[in-house]
Formats: sequence, structure tokens, C-alpha cells
Amino acid sequence: MYTQNPVFIPGPTNMPEVLRRATDLPTIDHRSAAFADILQPALAGVRKVVKSENAEIVVFPATGSGGWEATITNLLSPGDKVLAARCGMFSHRWIDMCQRHGLQVDTVHSSWQQPLPLAEYEKRLFADKGHDIKAVLVTHNETATGVKSDVGAVRRLLDDAKHPALLLVDGVSSIASMDFRMDEWKVDAAITGSQKGFMLPVGLAILALSPKAMQAAQSAKLHRAYFDIREMAKTYPSSGYPYTPSVGLLNGLKMSTELLLGEGLDNVFKRHARIASGVRAAVSAWGLRLYAQEESSFSDTVSAVETPDGFDATSIVTHAAQKYAVAFGAGLGDVAGRVFRIGHLGSMSDVMALSGIATAEMAMADLGLPIRLGSGVAAAQEIYRNTAASAIRNAA
Amino acid sequence: MYTQNPVFIPGPTNMPEVLRRATDLPTIDHRSAAFADILQPALAGVRKVVKSENAEIVVFPATGSGGWEATITNLLSPGDKVLAARCGMFSHRWIDMCQRHGLQVDTVHSSWQQPLPLAEYEKRLFADKGHDIKAVLVTHNETATGVKSDVGAVRRLLDDAKHPALLLVDGVSSIASMDFRMDEWKVDAAITGSQKGFMLPVGLAILALSPKAMQAAQSAKLHRAYFDIREMAKTYPSSGYPYTPSVGLLNGLKMSTELLLGEGLDNVFKRHARIASGVRAAVSAWGLRLYAQEESSFSDTVSAVETPDGFDATSIVTHAAQKYAVAFGAGLGDVAGRVFRIGHLGSMSDVMALSGIATAEMAMADLGLPIRLGSGVAAAQEIYRNTAASAIRNAA
Amino acid sequence: MYTQNPVFIPGPTNMPEVLRRATDLPTIDHRSAAFADILQPALAGVRKVVKSENAEIVVFPATGSGGWEATITNLLSPGDKVLAARCGMFSHRWIDMCQRHGLQVDTVHSSWQQPLPLAEYEKRLFADKGHDIKAVLVTHNETATGVKSDVGAVRRLLDDAKHPALLLVDGVSSIASMDFRMDEWKVDAAITGSQKGFMLPVGLAILALSPKAMQAAQSAKLHRAYFDIREMAKTYPSSGYPYTPSVGLLNGLKMSTELLLGEGLDNVFKRHARIASGVRAAVSAWGLRLYAQEESSFSDTVSAVETPDGFDATSIVTHAAQKYAVAFGAGLGDVAGRVFRIGHLGSMSDVMALSGIATAEMAMADLGLPIRLGSGVAAAQEIYRNTAASAIRNAA
Amino acid sequence: MYTQNPVFIPGPTNMPEVLRRATDLPTIDHRSAAFADILQPALAGVRKVVKSENAEIVVFPATGSGGWEATITNLLSPGDKVLAARCGMFSHRWIDMCQRHGLQVDTVHSSWQQPLPLAEYEKRLFADKGHDIKAVLVTHNETATGVKSDVGAVRRLLDDAKHPALLLVDGVSSIASMDFRMDEWKVDAAITGSQKGFMLPVGLAILALSPKAMQAAQSAKLHRAYFDIREMAKTYPSSGYPYTPSVGLLNGLKMSTELLLGEGLDNVFKRHARIASGVRAAVSAWGLRLYAQEESSFSDTVSAVETPDGFDATSIVTHAAQKYAVAFGAGLGDVAGRVFRIGHLGSMSDVMALSGIATAEMAMADLGLPIRLGSGVAAAQEIYRNTAASAIRNAA
Repeated sequence: MYTQNPVFIPGPTNMPEVLRRATDLPTIDHRSAAFADILQPALAGVRKVVKSENAEIVVFPATGSGGWEATITNLLSPGDKVLAARCGMFSHRWIDMCQRHGLQVDTVHSSWQQPLPLAEYEKRLFADKGHDIKAVLVTHNETATGVKSDVGAVRRLLDDAKHPALLLVDGVSSIASMDFRMDEWKVDAAITGSQKGFMLPVGLAILALSPKAMQAAQSAKLHRAYFDIREMAKTYPSSGYPYTPSVGLLNGLKMSTELLLGEGLDNVFKRHARIASGVRAAVSAWGLRLYAQEESSFSDTVSAVETPDGFDATSIVTHAAQKYAVAFGAGLGDVAGRVFRIGHLGSMSDVMALSGIATAEMAMADLGLPIRLGSGVAAAQEIYRNTAASAIRNAA
Repeated sequence: MYTQNPVFIPGPTNMPEVLRRATDLPTIDHRSAAFADILQPALAGVRKVVKSENAEIVVFPATGSGGWEATITNLLSPGDKVLAARCGMFSHRWIDMCQRHGLQVDTVHSSWQQPLPLAEYEKRLFADKGHDIKAVLVTHNETATGVKSDVGAVRRLLDDAKHPALLLVDGVSSIASMDFRMDEWKVDAAITGSQKGFMLPVGLAILALSPKAMQAAQSAKLHRAYFDIREMAKTYPSSGYPYTPSVGLLNGLKMSTELLLGEGLDNVFKRHARIASGVRAAVSAWGLRLYAQEESSFSDTVSAVETPDGFDATSIVTHAAQKYAVAFGAGLGDVAGRVFRIGHLGSMSDVMALSGIATAEMAMADLGLPIRLGSGVAAAQEIYRNTAASAIRNAA
Repeated sequence: MYTQNPVFIPGPTNMPEVLRRATDLPTIDHRSAAFADILQPALAGVRKVVKSENAEIVVFPATGSGGWEATITNLLSPGDKVLAARCGMFSHRWIDMCQRHGLQVDTVHSSWQQPLPLAEYEKRLFADKGHDIKAVLVTHNETATGVKSDVGAVRRLLDDAKHPALLLVDGVSSIASMDFRMDEWKVDAAITGSQKGFMLPVGLAILALSPKAMQAAQSAKLHRAYFDIREMAKTYPSSGYPYTPSVGLLNGLKMSTELLLGEGLDNVFKRHARIASGVRAAVSAWGLRLYAQEESSFSDTVSAVETPDGFDATSIVTHAAQKYAVAFGAGLGDVAGRVFRIGHLGSMSDVMALSGIATAEMAMADLGLPIRLGSGVAAAQEIYRNTAASAIRNAA
Repeated sequence: MYTQNPVFIPGPTNMPEVLRRATDLPTIDHRSAAFADILQPALAGVRKVVKSENAEIVVFPATGSGGWEATITNLLSPGDKVLAARCGMFSHRWIDMCQRHGLQVDTVHSSWQQPLPLAEYEKRLFADKGHDIKAVLVTHNETATGVKSDVGAVRRLLDDAKHPALLLVDGVSSIASMDFRMDEWKVDAAITGSQKGFMLPVGLAILALSPKAMQAAQSAKLHRAYFDIREMAKTYPSSGYPYTPSVGLLNGLKMSTELLLGEGLDNVFKRHARIASGVRAAVSAWGLRLYAQEESSFSDTVSAVETPDGFDATSIVTHAAQKYAVAFGAGLGDVAGRVFRIGHLGSMSDVMALSGIATAEMAMADLGLPIRLGSGVAAAQEIYRNTAASAIRNAA
């Protein structure tokens, strides 16, 4: 068959046609004035999306993982200590990357079902009288578990402890879909990629850096060249680039921020919350539970659904792909086989979400789980029809 | 918002990306050899889709309505009598067109809820000893009502009556989605458009003509120039065209027939039947009825759903468009306000169909109809999961 | 190879990517409000392009040939006399179409190298005291010969003769590329297609009709149904359409008029004149002549180049296509083999034109014509560099 | 205006529509089987393009600069000595990158007009009895100067000296356009990007690594995480990826290698040589010289043209962009203002090249250089028409 069903993986997300077209740009000379018309609005747009007045926005031809690397290699020096919690597959990987680059990671091992362990962070930060901890790492939204953490609370801890550590935040699956307040939370480095809330193809690591971070980059000693934020920051004012830029993707980024800001960030976040509520209502109606335990930490971009003991959750993903041509996310790392994930971020409408819920129902029923067909759909429908306040406009 | 929900109108249908791309061809010289590589496979492909060995396939830059006009102006002469049943909006319009071109229409007025009235056709054909009736018109699938008629039975009537009238069939919303047997049924002219089962943009009137029809075209006296099938048939062997052809759409048509024949016509028809079964199960689950009364005449491409007396069925269409950005079809002509239509032909997957059913449920509930949310979805899911025999492959 | 060279046929023309994308629209419900946002600006835009205040613009899913048919069948009655000059392949075909529809054509046989024979028109119009001539046909720009005729002069003849005949103008290869003044010239029907100056795919017959023409349509007796302008005019105010419209192409037409009006019609015409001057300078530099004899009738959209006696001009077209993958136009009808045509309308830049001229030079040299390589290019370069007053902006 | 002229920068290059479309893929799940159908042919295709039997092909979401970084960080350890020649802007930058990563660079400063100084390499390699030099860097084709170096000769030096240093080659502007023999030359690491000979958007760093290089990666001590070739090599056999891959670009890469191998590598190289010959003939006809001094080192992908003393070569680039909407490359680094560059790699036809040559002529004449219009075009035409052995096929 030659239909194209939506995907329900937590990224790369479904791409609106208008963004695919903005990205699929014919070759233009990136040393010409045309590039300025692309780069500058893209940077300004991202700055608004992260709610900052004067963050330096830096965009590399890379993925979010490249963004992690750029953050640590630009801001830290060999042997520096960083505080991090291992509470999901992606925080695990970031920790691993720090270690590969010769950093000393003060790792908090915490439950993957819980948000970042604030109490433990508090203890260690207050104990660190010598300010050996140079940076605190926070994964805003764990893509592997659907658990959201409280970045603002970490900032308050740092302030309370009068601790000067840099606050580095992985916002890969939150930025542009969930509220992110760079300036209010005094985030020093925020990292995301093009393929999540920005609804673009993979290929851009997007960083927002505070003035304090840019300052830190001057003295940081880890090696970096491709990912040097100083080179980027130096060439941007004249719309230059240290090497060949991904012009098409940057044009897509410009257009994406126009869409998001045009819809209104608050509306974008509310839309994600609405869609997520429907998915969560469906999970309840199925008699299942989210892997995330506390309602306050439920993610609005991805839901990891726990399946009964003894059942291989990954079989749902495989089966739905094979029989219904619909993609869900499998459990990763410690939760492999225990959860399957429904991504509901980016370009997602009520109607699309309902088709994902309906498909999950069929797949689970097919595999013998005691799911009543239509039950999750009905629960989500109830929410969607009561919250779809106004017309939604279809557009190319 | 910038999502693109599927449409559930009975045409133009959802277009697979691969067909949009085949259609969106850069300019090529239609007098060059490249055009032969497009035209000939397109014609041969259509011939297979209508199950004919040697029908002349003629394609005009026009719509299905243009196809109707081409059929009558090429095959008939002023004052000729044609037999036709007015059993839906589209048969009504075809009759009107015949009259505008100076034909004498022997019109059977029959119920829109029923297929073509075979008994009445039989009576008039047998009564027509002088063979004044030069052509018999049949609308294979009434897009306005979701009622399918039996073309083969009309052929048998003609044969039984030893009547030489031409058999002209409107297959606009059946061909390429429902079984159509040009040769077996000895159809003389079959008409369709690009925007239904072929899943292409509007713009091609596609005709299949029997040798008998091509012969009739030599002596027919109605005026025609733009729609002259003789000019087409004359230029095709050398891959010419009487005027500028729609090269892009013809390339799309070539690709469409490749997709359809690659899937296998029987599989295409089964898929339409499966999807339609699910929709019909949903309608029953809602406690509603199809406008079509006999199960044997239920269409596999469009379902017209009757709403309760006093309820304006068109409000569902308007509401679904405004609140959920989903398009259904309104009732037309005699059934305006009494039915709404769910189109389920062309590029349609289980998952897409479920999203349409879910949306219709929400819209009806919103408007006060006593519909239990999820009920139609569950009924369709049951059918889909039990009939989705094999993997469905997503493709661009 | 997988490069895409520009085409130099006089239509279909090269399509700007922005117009291909506007045309390649996903399926939308043409009965929804979205269609109004497409149809109305498209109609209004065309009206401006033909410089009319209140012409009825009617757009059929068809080609320019369909536009001819629409014009005569809507405005004339069986046996009506029309005055026409056979001065090229396309005027020849229009005459033929009139005859097929039962009109009586008063044909002036004139030189294909000359514009419409005004003196002969004058004679016949003044002689027609009984006003038997119901319509006067004018081909504004003969695509087959590159000869432009003077529509305004025909209007003056009609006025001088106080003759009430309708003035019907084939503007297929002039409108949107050369100055066309619907109101000033009191044109009653102007016809064009989507694939020339509008730079779109084939598929739209575009008509502009004066109030007098719309009036004539009320009493005209030729049969028409698909091409009935009354049905169109009736449904447009509420953004309806008598059958399924070519939504994508209409969206392309909307965008095309935005581009043209954004550039400024005068600039569009000047650009065509500049490009054409360069091509003509190249022809002179080659020691060849245009087929058109009078400078005042040289077309700004297509140049037909005469080759020496005994040389088969069509071989240039075939050779350039095979060896250099570049399309030129062959001679048609009476001039087959005597001329080859360089189309230079629509989306054409200096740089593109130079590549066409350079290719023609190579092809002619390859085939033994005594052409000095680079000579035509140099002549065109001289003109282009002296007239390219301002920056030309590349855009997708 | 809304035309799209070709670009004549030495990358990113003009993209065939078929490659843009292959790259512009809707979202698919990169953890599904569909990804295997993309990744494996892409890797196998690149391996053939570099003429290797068993090189490990590794593709990062990055640019060619990222490829440089990947090569050195994976194969070398802090303080390692590498031998490199600074003979152009890009070799200069690679040296700089080595130093930033803590390597000790034994730099040969040589003329930018000459290829890599073999004699000096020979001297230093033979002198390095202790084999302190761990890697020898070679820029196969200096994009900044249009000078090609002899990789095979460097291999012979290493073999003659029985020197075990790794041979690392920057093939960014040569691979897929000029002959590259990974296995014959025993290259240990070859680097390129997607946006040159592969005719794709920017975004892929493409590496080919010898077994010896893969072995070196096991013990190399420079930090790397994002660019770790071991992680890539480990996940590829099961069509995994260490993080989110650029699925669209990889699909483009697959298709690009299909195009290149379908044309035949020898034909691809001959085509580039033909086009380059024409450009060089034009330069001679203008009375100018290439910056490259030795004919044996003339690049087939980019020509840097020297302008007379006192003339600002960059003004040609600026002027051509502004007045003719055509992009050429400016001189970089030591040759800024002294040369302008004509890129002629990737998707380039005779006809396109002629339009670039014609534009350069106009721009130079406009700026007062004593260039005879048409002279360069004529010289190139003579070559093109005599070498265009067979039909070139236009394709989408």
C-alpha cells in the first residue's frame, strides 16, 4: 500500500508539508545575502521559543547528541566535576558522553519512574562548599520514560546554595512543545534538535547559551573544533558560518519558528497538553498505567505505557508496524520490554492522535491483552471534543 | 495548526505522495520521445484496470463531466434517444447534459435508495422493437447516494433483448476501486476521472471505448472538436496528441496504474471492501442506517449515512470541518440535509478510516445525536483487525 | 544524466518552483471555505493581468483549445458567420474548430510571415452591411510563426465600420507575457491557457469575457454543457464550481498572478522584450532571419528562425534534444522543416536564454550550417548586459 | 524574478530533482526495517564510489569539517605528530583543527599554486626513522585553488620509505567527481561530504576507513563521542545507529550512488573532465590564467581564475550575483581578491556550463576587464560539441 500513516514515535516527528518544503530548498550560495535572510530570523525565532532575551543561539549541522557534546566541550575543562542524575536512557547517555570526554561525573542513580531527585541534588550542592561541581545536568523531559523534571526547581536549589555551577539542560524532547523558560530559570545551556518540537528532519543541533556560558567558553579547556561555539558566535553577526551550513534546514527552522510563534507558544503548549491528556485518558481506560508515577511529572510529549508483567511490550511496536504500518516507540535500556511509547509531540492533531490510540488498541487486543476495543478512543474523544475550543485549520 | 488530516470526501481523494510527485513533473517537450514513455504505459495501464484487452483508451485534459460529454458527442447524433435512470445527483446531471446536447432522453425516475431499476430497463428495451434507443446509460456507482448498480445485469438485458444500443457507463467513483469488467460486460464506453480511484489531482477525463463505440464515432453527428476521440485515437500510436497534453497528470496516471496493478486489482478491490465494511459496521453501531437500502448495492467507495428526521445532516459536515479540520461529504440534490457521506476510496488505510469514524462520532455527539463515543470505532476495529491479513507497507 | 536543462519550446514553459509547489496542493475539499481563498484571488488576478475592470473570468479544466471551443459555443449559434484569417497553424486550427461546430467561416488566406491582414478585414467588415459577421477572430500572437498582430487596430476597424461583431482573441501565447488590454481594445473574449505566460502546468483554459459577451451567451444556440460559461459565472460568486475544479492549478494560478503583479506587468513585458531582443540579435549574428518579416510584428514570446533552403530545420530540434538535452520547437504546418522555434516566454532569465542560444549554435554548427560559435551569444550578451538595469533575484 | 539559475560555486552543488526528492522523505521510524533498506545500500554504494572492496563506510550527521574531526579524533592520540602541507585554505583549516585537538603538526608550507610538495614529503618521511609521524594528511583537491594533488604518489612515498603512517585524505571536492582509488592507493581514511559530488544538501560527513584505520581506532586516545567510528561500525550490521540518523539524507545518498554507478564512474569522471576542459578553454580565450600552474594538477571540479593585478576578483562574484543572479566562488584566504572560482562539479551539463561562462564574460566586461564577449563561450562550445559523444537524457 502507498498510504502514509502518521508516526507515533517520540521523534523524529511528523513533518508538516510546509516545513518539508521550506527545508527542501534549491542550492543557494551561503556566502550571499540570501543566507542572511534565513539565518538571522532562524536564530531570533529560536531565541523567542526558549523565552530568552539575549541568549546566544548556535546551530550546528548535527543531532541533539552533537548538542550535548558541544555543550560540555565548550563550557568545561578536563577533569571538571559535573552533577547528573541517571534517570533514563538519555540522561544515561549524556553521562556516558561526559565520561568519554574526561569529565568526572557525580552521578545520582535514581528511579526512572521519577523526575530528577531534587533532594539528592540539594544535598550534594550544599555539600559542595568548594564549588568543585562546575555544571549541573538536567534532562528536562526523559524521552525514554515520559517523565518531566522541574528545571526551575533546580535553579532555585542552585540559588539557595549560592552555587555558581552552570545549569545545562537537555531540552531535546521538550523545547518547542512544552514550556521552557531560559531566562526565568537562568539556564546556561539549553540543547535541542530539529526533529522534535520543531517538526523538521534530523540534522540540526540547536543550542541556547547564556552570557555566563559564553563567558565560560573563553576559558574552557576541552578540545573542540567542529563544535566550537566561539567560531559560530563570531561569524553570525555578518551572517557567516565557520563551514558550510545546512541552509535548507536553517530555512526550515526559520519557518518552524514562524509557525510556532504564529500559533502562539502558549497555544502550542496547550495543544500538546490537550493531546497528551487524551492519550493518558486512553491508557487509563485500557486499565494500564503510565511508567511515570507522579502526575506532576507526566510528559506532554511522550507517554511510556507499562504493560503487564510477563508481556513483551516491544511486541506491540513490532506488531503495529507490521500489521498496521504505524510506528510506536519501544522501551529503551532498563525499560526495554516493559513499556511501549506513544509519541505525541510536534505536528499532531486530535484526529491523528485518535488513529494512534485506535491502532494501539487493535495491536494490544491482537496480542492477547484484555483491552476493550474503542475504550481508549472513547476516553480520548471525550477530552478532545470538550477541549477543542476553536476551529483547527488544515494547511499544506 | 499545520497538520494535514486525511479527507473523507468521495473524491478528490487523498493522494499518495508518490503520485503527487509523479504528477509534479518539470516541463518536458511533449513532442519528444520522453512523452511516449509516459503516454503509452498510461494507456496500457488503464486498459488493464478496466479489464479490457483492446479497448481504445482516450484521455482528455478535463474532468469526469468532460468525459460524459465526450462519450455522448462522439457516439450519438442529434435527436438520438438514450435510456437513462435518474437515481442520484450524478445520473441526474448526465441526463441534463444529454438534453443540452439535443438528445432525447427516455428517463426512468427511480428511487435514489435503490440501484438502477433493471425491471424498468428490461421493459423499455424489449418494447423498443425499432431500436430507437441508441444508447443505455448506467451510473455504476452513484457518488451521491453510495448505491452501486449492476452493469453486468444491464448487459444481460441488452443481450436478452437482442438490442444493439450502446452501453455507456459512468464509472467515475467505481473504476480502480471496485471491480469493473469492460470486456466481460461488453461496455461500449466507460468514463472516469483522475481524482477518484486513481488518487490523482483533478484534470483527466479517462475513457475506455469498445471497437463498436469507435465505429459509432465515425458516423455520429453531434458536434465535437476538443473532445473528438477520433483525433485522439489517430495521434496516439505515434505518441502524439491533438493539442497540448497534461504531461504531468499523464505521468501520474502511468504511476497510478503501476501502483494499482502492483498491488493487484483483486487486492485493491478487497481493500476497498474491507475498509467499507468497517465503515458500515460503525454506522450500525451508531444506530444509524445507510441511505442505500439493499446490502447488495452498498458501495465500497462511499457511504451515505442517513440522520434522524429533523436533523440537518449537513451540519455534521460543516462542524467536522470547522472543529476537527476533517472533510466529509454533504448530501446533494434530493438528499441534501438528509445524509452525510463518508468517502473511503483511493489511498485509504485502516488507520485513516478509524480516524474518520472517530471524528464523525465526535461531531455527531457534539451536535446532540445520541451516539456513544467509541462505538463505531470499536465495530470497525473488530473488522479491521480480523481482516488485515498481512503487513501493510508505509511508503512515500 | 540527471540534470534538468531549461526548455525553449513556446509552451509549456519552464515552471518556477514556487508555482509547481503552489500547484502541487494536497487534497482539500473544494466545497469548503478554503476553496474561496483560492478561486477568488485567482479570478481577480487574471482580470488584472488582462487589464480589465469588469471582465468575467472563467476557468475551465481544459487547455487553450478548450478555451477556443468555449468561446465559440457560448457566444454563437449554428450557421453564424465569423471572420478569420488563416495566418498560422493555430489560427488554422481555430478556423477548423469553428467549422466542426457548424459555423460559417469567412476565411482570409494571408501570408504566414505577416500579421493579420488588416486591409482585408477592413474590406470585409465594411462590406458586411447586414452585419452577418457575428464575430471576428484574432490570433494575437501566432505561436507557430512568432508573428504578433495588432488587436487594437482590429478594434478600430470595427469601430470605424460601426460593426457590432464580437471581437474574440486567442491570447494563448501573449497574455501574461505581452501587453494585453482587454478593456481598451474592447475585446469580447480573450483566451489563454495555464502553461504559457502563467508558467503553470497544462490544464486550465482561462477566459476573459466582456459584459457584451456574457449577454451574447444568453441567446447563443450552439450546444455546450461542460464549457458553459453561464454555469461557471453563476456558481463563482459563492465560490462554487459546476463540477470538480482543478484546485491545485487554480491555486497555482492565484500564485502566478501574485508573482506577475508583484513584478509589475510593465516589468514583465519589458523583461520579455529584452530577452526577445537578445534572441533576435543572435539570429542576425548567425546570418539568419526570422520568419516574421516586419519588425513591428516580431513576437516577444517566440522566435521562428528560418534556415537556408534545402536544410531541414527540424533536424536542429531533433539533434539538440538528442545531443544536448535541450528542447526547441519545430516548424508546424506550412512551415514544417523551414523554421525552428525558440520559445522565450514565461520564467526565463538572461542566463537561461544565453544557454539556449549557445545550444542552438552548437546544434547548427554540428549540422553543417555556417554558424560562427559564440557569435549569437555575443550579440545577445551585449544586449543583456546593457539592459539588465537592476538586480535579478533568484528564488525558489 | 522567480527563475532559478544554476550555481557555479564549488559546493554545495546543483541538486538534481530526483535527489532532492529522495532526501525529502516523510518521517519514517529509523528503528524499523525500512531503515535497513536505506542504510545498507547507501553504505555499499559509497564503498563502490571510492573503489574499495572492504572499507568501513561511516556516515555522520555533520559536514566535511566534521569528517576531518572524526578522522583525527578516532585515529590519533594526544601529542601525535602528523605531516601536512599547507597549500590552500582547506588544508590550512585541517591543520588548524589538528592543532586544536592537541596534535603536533609537521607543516610543510608550500605554494598554493602547486600540488602537494612530494619532494618535501619524501624528505621528511625518510628522515623520520623513528616513525614519529603517525599520519600523513593529503588534500586531494584544494577547493580554494583548483589544484589537484597526487594521492597515489604519496602512497608510493610511504611504501618506499616503509613508513607505517596512516594516509588520511580530504576528498571533499574530489570524491564522486574525480577518480578516487581507496584500495589501490591504500588510503586509510577518506573524507567527503554530501553536498559536492554526491549532489545532495549539506548534512552528511562521509568517511571511508581502511581495516588498518579501524584497528587504529581501537587504541587511539583522543576524546570522541559524537564522532566515534567504533559506535557507528558496531551498530551498522544490524542497521542501527548510535543516535538519530539523518534518514532523508541517507536515502538521498543511496539514490545518489545509484545515479553515479548507473552512469558509470568512468563516465562520471569523463563528464567532469569534459566540462572542466571547456571552462579552461574559456579562461584561455579570455586571455586569463588559472591560478593552478601545472596542467597535471588542474582540477576537474573547480577552476580558480586569476584576474589582472590591481583588479578585485571578488567584485566579479558580487556583481554576477547582483546583476545576473548567478553565484560564483570568491577567493579565500591567501588568494582573496586575486581569484574567482567557477565550480563545475556535480549535476552539470554542457548547457549549464555555457551559461556560467557566458555570465562570467558579461560580468567581467561590465567591470572593465578586456574580455571579448562570446570568446570563452565559443572556446567551450568547440570542446563540448566535439566531445558530447552521445545523447544526454534530461530527467526529473
